[in-house]
Amino acid sequence: MAGSVFGQVFKMATWGESHGKGIGVVVDGCPAGLALDEEKIQSYLDRRKPGQTKYSTPRKEDDAVEILSGIFDGRTTGTPISMVVYNKTQRSKDYSEIAGYYRPGHADYTFDMKYGFRDYRGGGRSSGRETIGRVAAGAIAEEVLKELGIEVCAYSKSICGITIDKSYTGNCLYEGLEILRNNMMKSPLYMPDPVASQKAEELLSQRMHEKDSAGGIIECIVSGIPAGIGEPVFEKLDANIAKAVMSIGAVKGVEIGKGFEVAYSSGSANNDNFCVSNNASIVKKTNSAGGILGGISDSSNIVIRAAVKPTPSIAKLQHTISKDGNDINVEINGRHDPVIVPRAVVVVEAMIAVTVLDLLMMSMFSRLDLMKKFFSL
Amino acid sequence: MAGSVFGQVFKMATWGESHGKGIGVVVDGCPAGLALDEEKIQSYLDRRKPGQTKYSTPRKEDDAVEILSGIFDGRTTGTPISMVVYNKTQRSKDYSEIAGYYRPGHADYTFDMKYGFRDYRGGGRSSGRETIGRVAAGAIAEEVLKELGIEVCAYSKSICGITIDKSYTGNCLYEGLEILRNNMMKSPLYMPDPVASQKAEELLSQRMHEKDSAGGIIECIVSGIPAGIGEPVFEKLDANIAKAVMSIGAVKGVEIGKGFEVAYSSGSANNDNFCVSNNASIVKKTNSAGGILGGISDSSNIVIRAAVKPTPSIAKLQHTISKDGNDINVEINGRHDPVIVPRAVVVVEAMIAVTVLDLLMMSMFSRLDLMKKFFSL
Amino acid sequence: MAGSVFGQVFKMATWGESHGKGIGVVVDGCPAGLALDEEKIQSYLDRRKPGQTKYSTPRKEDDAVEILSGIFDGRTTGTPISMVVYNKTQRSKDYSEIAGYYRPGHADYTFDMKYGFRDYRGGGRSSGRETIGRVAAGAIAEEVLKELGIEVCAYSKSICGITIDKSYTGNCLYEGLEILRNNMMKSPLYMPDPVASQKAEELLSQRMHEKDSAGGIIECIVSGIPAGIGEPVFEKLDANIAKAVMSIGAVKGVEIGKGFEVAYSSGSANNDNFCVSNNASIVKKTNSAGGILGGISDSSNIVIRAAVKPTPSIAKLQHTISKDGNDINVEINGRHDPVIVPRAVVVVEAMIAVTVLDLLMMSMFSRLDLMKKFFSL
Amino acid sequence: MAGSVFGQVFKMATWGESHGKGIGVVVDGCPAGLALDEEKIQSYLDRRKPGQTKYSTPRKEDDAVEILSGIFDGRTTGTPISMVVYNKTQRSKDYSEIAGYYRPGHADYTFDMKYGFRDYRGGGRSSGRETIGRVAAGAIAEEVLKELGIEVCAYSKSICGITIDKSYTGNCLYEGLEILRNNMMKSPLYMPDPVASQKAEELLSQRMHEKDSAGGIIECIVSGIPAGIGEPVFEKLDANIAKAVMSIGAVKGVEIGKGFEVAYSSGSANNDNFCVSNNASIVKKTNSAGGILGGISDSSNIVIRAAVKPTPSIAKLQHTISKDGNDINVEINGRHDPVIVPRAVVVVEAMIAVTVLDLLMMSMFSRLDLMKKFFSL
Repeated sequence: MAGSVFGQVFKMATWGESHGKGIGVVVDGCPAGLALDEEKIQSYLDRRKPGQTKYSTPRKEDDAVEILSGIFDGRTTGTPISMVVYNKTQRSKDYSEIAGYYRPGHADYTFDMKYGFRDYRGGGRSSGRETIGRVAAGAIAEEVLKELGIEVCAYSKSICGITIDKSYTGNCLYEGLEILRNNMMKSPLYMPDPVASQKAEELLSQRMHEKDSAGGIIECIVSGIPAGIGEPVFEKLDANIAKAVMSIGAVKGVEIGKGFEVAYSSGSANNDNFCVSNNASIVKKTNSAGGILGGISDSSNIVIRAAVKPTPSIAKLQHTISKDGNDINVEINGRHDPVIVPRAVVVVEAMIAVTVLDLLMMSMFSRLDLMKKFFSL
Repeated sequence: MAGSVFGQVFKMATWGESHGKGIGVVVDGCPAGLALDEEKIQSYLDRRKPGQTKYSTPRKEDDAVEILSGIFDGRTTGTPISMVVYNKTQRSKDYSEIAGYYRPGHADYTFDMKYGFRDYRGGGRSSGRETIGRVAAGAIAEEVLKELGIEVCAYSKSICGITIDKSYTGNCLYEGLEILRNNMMKSPLYMPDPVASQKAEELLSQRMHEKDSAGGIIECIVSGIPAGIGEPVFEKLDANIAKAVMSIGAVKGVEIGKGFEVAYSSGSANNDNFCVSNNASIVKKTNSAGGILGGISDSSNIVIRAAVKPTPSIAKLQHTISKDGNDINVEINGRHDPVIVPRAVVVVEAMIAVTVLDLLMMSMFSRLDLMKKFFSL
Repeated sequence: MAGSVFGQVFKMATWGESHGKGIGVVVDGCPAGLALDEEKIQSYLDRRKPGQTKYSTPRKEDDAVEILSGIFDGRTTGTPISMVVYNKTQRSKDYSEIAGYYRPGHADYTFDMKYGFRDYRGGGRSSGRETIGRVAAGAIAEEVLKELGIEVCAYSKSICGITIDKSYTGNCLYEGLEILRNNMMKSPLYMPDPVASQKAEELLSQRMHEKDSAGGIIECIVSGIPAGIGEPVFEKLDANIAKAVMSIGAVKGVEIGKGFEVAYSSGSANNDNFCVSNNASIVKKTNSAGGILGGISDSSNIVIRAAVKPTPSIAKLQHTISKDGNDINVEINGRHDPVIVPRAVVVVEAMIAVTVLDLLMMSMFSRLDLMKKFFSL
Repeated sequence: MAGSVFGQVFKMATWGESHGKGIGVVVDGCPAGLALDEEKIQSYLDRRKPGQTKYSTPRKEDDAVEILSGIFDGRTTGTPISMVVYNKTQRSKDYSEIAGYYRPGHADYTFDMKYGFRDYRGGGRSSGRETIGRVAAGAIAEEVLKELGIEVCAYSKSICGITIDKSYTGNCLYEGLEILRNNMMKSPLYMPDPVASQKAEELLSQRMHEKDSAGGIIECIVSGIPAGIGEPVFEKLDANIAKAVMSIGAVKGVEIGKGFEVAYSSGSANNDNFCVSNNASIVKKTNSAGGILGGISDSSNIVIRAAVKPTPSIAKLQHTISKDGNDINVEINGRHDPVIVPRAVVVVEAMIAVTVLDLLMMSMFSRLDLMKKFFSL
C-alpha cells in the first residue's frame, strides 16, 4: 500500500531515506496565490534541525530546502510544490553494524518481516529524518492558515517528568498564541516555562550521563479556527488529528482537550457550558472538549497532546538477537538524541496544520447557500 | 465532504439518524466466500443494545439487523453487503424541546454552525445510534479475521475510576483471548474483573442518584496478528487505529501499548528486548510497544486504550444558552445511559477489527516474491 | 477492493443485486439545504424504468424509491442520504438455467473467475438494475447543479445506425438545453429528432423480429458550467467523466467534443479560436474541444458521447460452454431489452452530473483569494 | 484539489513545469524486491524523448532520469521511489510572448480562469513535459507486470488518416507481443506496419510544410493478464483505463475492444462465444469485448485505443484574443511536434501499465480462500 501519501484534498507525498540521496515531499492541492519562498520553509525546518543544543544529536545537518516546482513569480501556482533536502553527511559505515541485528524499540524487525529485507543505513525510511518532508509541507499549510487568521503552535509540555506550569499556556479558550510562541522559542527544549525548562535540562543531562534517554509530552494549540470544521462520523477533526499525530514515529498516545482525564470525571464537571460573549457571539465558558464537539470545531482553541516515547537508541547495554537468531548484547553508540520531544515539536505542529487545512478546505461545501454565494463571487 | 465512508479497501458507508427511518451500513470490499447470516451480525449488535441492565438507558430498542444484499447461498459474494436496522421507537416529541437550545457537551451547536440547521431529533446523525452501522460492519471484519486466526477483544478497563486488576488481562504478549472474553461477558459493565465490576456498579448507582454520569477507559487487544501489517510513514497501523477509535463519539484519547506512560519512562525501561522463543521464532520479552513497531505489527498482541467521556446528557441542572442567545437552565431528563463505556466496548472492537482487516489486506502486496506466489496459486 | 463507492467528496456507495431484496445507494457529501423529496428522485428513475414502450423489456418493475435518511423538514441535512428501491418481481426460477453456463457478452465467466462463484440470479450485481443507485444519486447531483445554474441533458444520438440530425442539438456552444430536453422526452427512444426516432423504431422492430439486438450512441451536454472546473494532470474533468461513463455496463467507448474525429483532423481545423462575445466575455467560436481545455472547463458546453453495445442477451441461437466445459447451444429467452441505449440515457446523465458536481466542489479551493472571501462570508 | 496523484494502492505523484527546475514523480506502493536501476527507467523515457526524428521537435532534451530514493542494493525496498529529470534547456524567453494571449487549443485560458494567473513558460504544468513523470512510473509498473508474466505494448495505429494493416496486430486474442513490439520499434512514428509508416511520414512532411499539424490513434494491447482483474460497478478495469488514458493531454476519446463500432453492430455479431482451448482452458473465439467483460479481465488480450488531437501549436496564422480582450493574429513559431502521437505512445502504455498493476494488486483480496492461502505462504 501507498503509505507515504497523506491528506484528502491538501495532499503530501513524502519520500527518502536517512542515508539515501535526500529527503523530499510533493505538496499537491495548495491553493494558488500564496506568497512562498525557500526562506519561509527553512525557518520551520530549522526548528527540527539537529546539533543546535547539547540536548540533540551533534550531527551536522544543514537540511537546506530547495523548491523544485509549483512557484511562479514568488507565488504558488496551484500545481504541485516539490521540495527536497539533499543528504550531505551520509556516513553509511556508521550503521553497517546494525544490519546484522534487531535494535529494541526500532522498526528493524518489522521492516524485515514486511518487505523481506531493509535499507538498514540509519534506519532507512523509518528514520526520524523522514519527518523533514512533513515539516516542509506543514510550513506551507501553516502559511495558508495564517492567511485565514488561524494560528498553530506546538511546544514541549513535559520532559523527563517535568511539566510546564499551566499559567504559561493561558486558559486555552479563545486567545492568540503569540506570547506562548515567544516563550517557547526561548527554551532549548521548546518548553515555554523557563523554570521547568531548566529543571528538565538538568534531568536530561543526568539521563545522558547514564547512557539512557527520556520521553515527554508535546502539546499543540490551534487558535482562530471557525466553527464548523470537521465532518461527522468518520472524518471528525479529532479523528484525523489523531491519525496525523500518531503517524509520527515515536508517538504512542494522542488526546484532545481533557483527554484521558475524562475517564475519571463526571458529566457535570466535564461539560462545557455555553454563554454569550461580550461581543455577542456564542462561546464556551470552559474547554474540556478541546475545541471539538461531535468531531467539529466549536471556534474555541483546539488543544491536542501527544505522548512521545524515549529515544530507543541508547548507549546503555541491551539484550537482543541477531538476524540469525543468536542472543547478543548491544551498546548503540552514535549520534542519537537523548530525547525526541524538542525536535518533534515542529513535526506535531506540521501534521496538525496539514490536517486542519485539509478539513477546512473540505468544509467549504457543507452548505448549498454558501456554495451559491461562492460561485457568484 | 463525505465523512461517513471509512476504509481504503475494506470500506463501510454508514447512514441514518436516531429518529429517522433506520440506521444502516454498506460494507464494500469484503472477500467472497465468508459464511455469514443475520444471526451472526446480531450477536455483535446485541452487545451495544440498550435496556439490558440498569446501567444503560431503559429505552427498548430491538435493533434487529436485516441483510439486504451481498449474500448468496449463505456466503458473501464479494459485492456490497447492505445492512439495515429500522428504528422502531421514534418518539420524536421527546426531543422537540432540545431543538431550541444547545446542550453542553453535545454537537448541537457545531452542527448548526456547519450546516445552518440540524435534525435535532435525538441528536440526529450525531446520536450514539450511529454506531450501529459500525458494529454491523465490524462484525463482518471480525468474522474474516477469525478465519485468518486473528482475534479482537475489547472490554471496560476502568469505570468511575475503578480499574480492573491486570491479572485479568494476562501479559498481553502472545496469548489468546478466550478467557478474557468469557470473563468480560459475565459483567453487566463488560469488566472482566468481577470485583472491580461490582465496585464500579456501586459507584455508578450513586452517580445515577446524583443525576450525573461517569467516564471510563476501554481497552482492546488483537491477538494472532502476523508481523508486517501496517504501512510506514502515514498509514501506520497505530495511526489508522487512532483515527478509527477517535472517530467514536465520546472518545477523547487513544493510546497504544504503554501509551502516555512512555512520557515518564526511559529508553532502557521502555524498549522491548527481542529473544528467541521455545519454538524458535523471534519474540519480544515485554510489550511496551503494544505490538506495533514503526507502525507495523510485530506479531505480539496489539494493545489499545480509549478514554471515554462521561455521558453529556445529565438530569442535573446545567447552564447554557438558547438558540436566540438567552441564558437558560436545563435539566436533560430522558432515557440516557449513566455511562457510555459498556455499550461502546463493542464499538471500539468493531472499529479496530475493520481497521486491522483493511491494513491486513493492503499488506498483501508488499513483496514481489509473495505476489508472484499468489498469482501462481 | 471496494468497487461500489464513487466520487471524491460527493460520494455514492451503491449496493444490491437484480434478484436480491432491493437496490440502493448511500449519497454522502451532499451539501445541506437542498429541497429534496422522493417524487423528485422518482422522476429520474422513471426514465430508466422498463416496460414503458415496446422497445424495452415488458417486465413490470415499479422501481419506487424510498428515502431512508439525510432529509429533515424537506431539506438535505448534509449527512448521508440513503435510498432504496425494493425488488418486487424476483422471479428467480427464470434464471436458474443460466447458473450452469457462461452467457456470451456477459460477466458470468469473469465473476466466477474473480470470486470463485457468483449470484447468477438475473446477473446478480452485474445486472442493469445496478444502475438504479446511480440514477438516484445522479438525481440529487442534478438538483444541486440546477441551483448553481448548470444543466445536464443526455439523449440517444444514434440507434441501429440511425443518427439524429445535428440541427436538433444546436451548435452546442453556449445555449441552454430546454428545447433539446423537450424534444428528447417526446421520443420513446429518447431521440430528440422525430424522423430519426421513427426510423430507428422501425429498424429496431425488425431486429427484435430477428431475435437480435442493437447498439447505439448516447450524447450528453452540460450547459452553464463556469470556467475552471477540473484539475490538471490526473483529475481532469474529461478523465473523470470518461471513467464515470465507461463504468456503465455496456459502454465500450467515450469521447469528448470532436472525439475520434480529431485523429483525422489538422491543428488549424481542430483548434477553437477565442473571441470576445457581445457581452464582453471571452468565448470560443467553435467547440471541437467539447468545453474542456487541458482537463478544465472553458465555460462552453461540455459534449460527451458514449458507445453502447447491443444487448448481449438474445433469443437467437448462440454457441458457448457450460461451467463443466461442454460445448452447448443456447437461446436466451426472457424479458430483455432489444437495445440498451434508451434506458441508459438517464444513467449516462446521472454519472456525468455526479462527476461534474464532485469536481465543481473540489474547484472551490483552487485560489487563496477566493478562499479568504469564502471564510469571510 | 490534488490532481497530480494517481492510483489507489500503486500510487504516483507527479510534479514539475516545462521550464522550472525539473520534472519528477514519486512512486509509492511498489512491492519490495524488484530489480531496478536508472538505465531501465531511461529506456522507457527515451521513447518519448524529442529530437530523435524529423517528425518531432528538434529541441535537445537529454531527459536523464535520476533515482533519489526507494532502491537499496539494486532492488526496490517497498518505500517511495522518487525520480527526477532536471530541465536543462530552459529557454524562458522563447515563451515570454505567449504570456499575453490565449493560444487556441491550449489550456492558457482555463488555467487563468482556475488559478487567477499561470506559469506561462512553455505551458508550465500543462506542458507535454509533464508526462515524463508518468512514463517513469509506468516503467516501474511494466517491470512489475513482466515479473508476473504480463506484457503491455502501445503503438501508433493511425497518423494523418493512414492506418496500419490489421495483419500486424494479429488477432489480438491470446498471443504475446514480441513481434508487434519489434515491428513498432523500427518505425520513426512507432507504427508497426512499414508501408503505413512510410505513407504517414510523407503526409506528415507535407503537413509540416503547410505549417499545420496532424492527429492520430494510439492502440495498446495487454497480454498475459489473468481473468478476474477489475472490480464490478465503478472500479471496472476499463473505467479506470479510460480515466488513465483520457488524462493524457491531447487525448479526446478512448475505446475498448470494438469500441465505437459496437454502436452499429448487433448482439449476435458482437458477442464473443466461449469455447474450450486445446489445453482445456476456457477461452473466447473472438474479442469484440477487448478482454474485459463486466469490467473484469477475461484473460484474453486487452485492447484499448485513444484518439489524439493534432498539436495545437501551429505556425499557421490563427485568430485569437489577447489577455486584455483584443482580437489578434498569431503564428506560433517554435519547436513544436507536427504530430503528438509517436511521442505519446509510451505515455499511453505507461498509464495503462500503472492502472493494470493497481487493479491487479487490489484483486488479491477478492476471495477469502485465496487470502487464507496467502497468509499461510
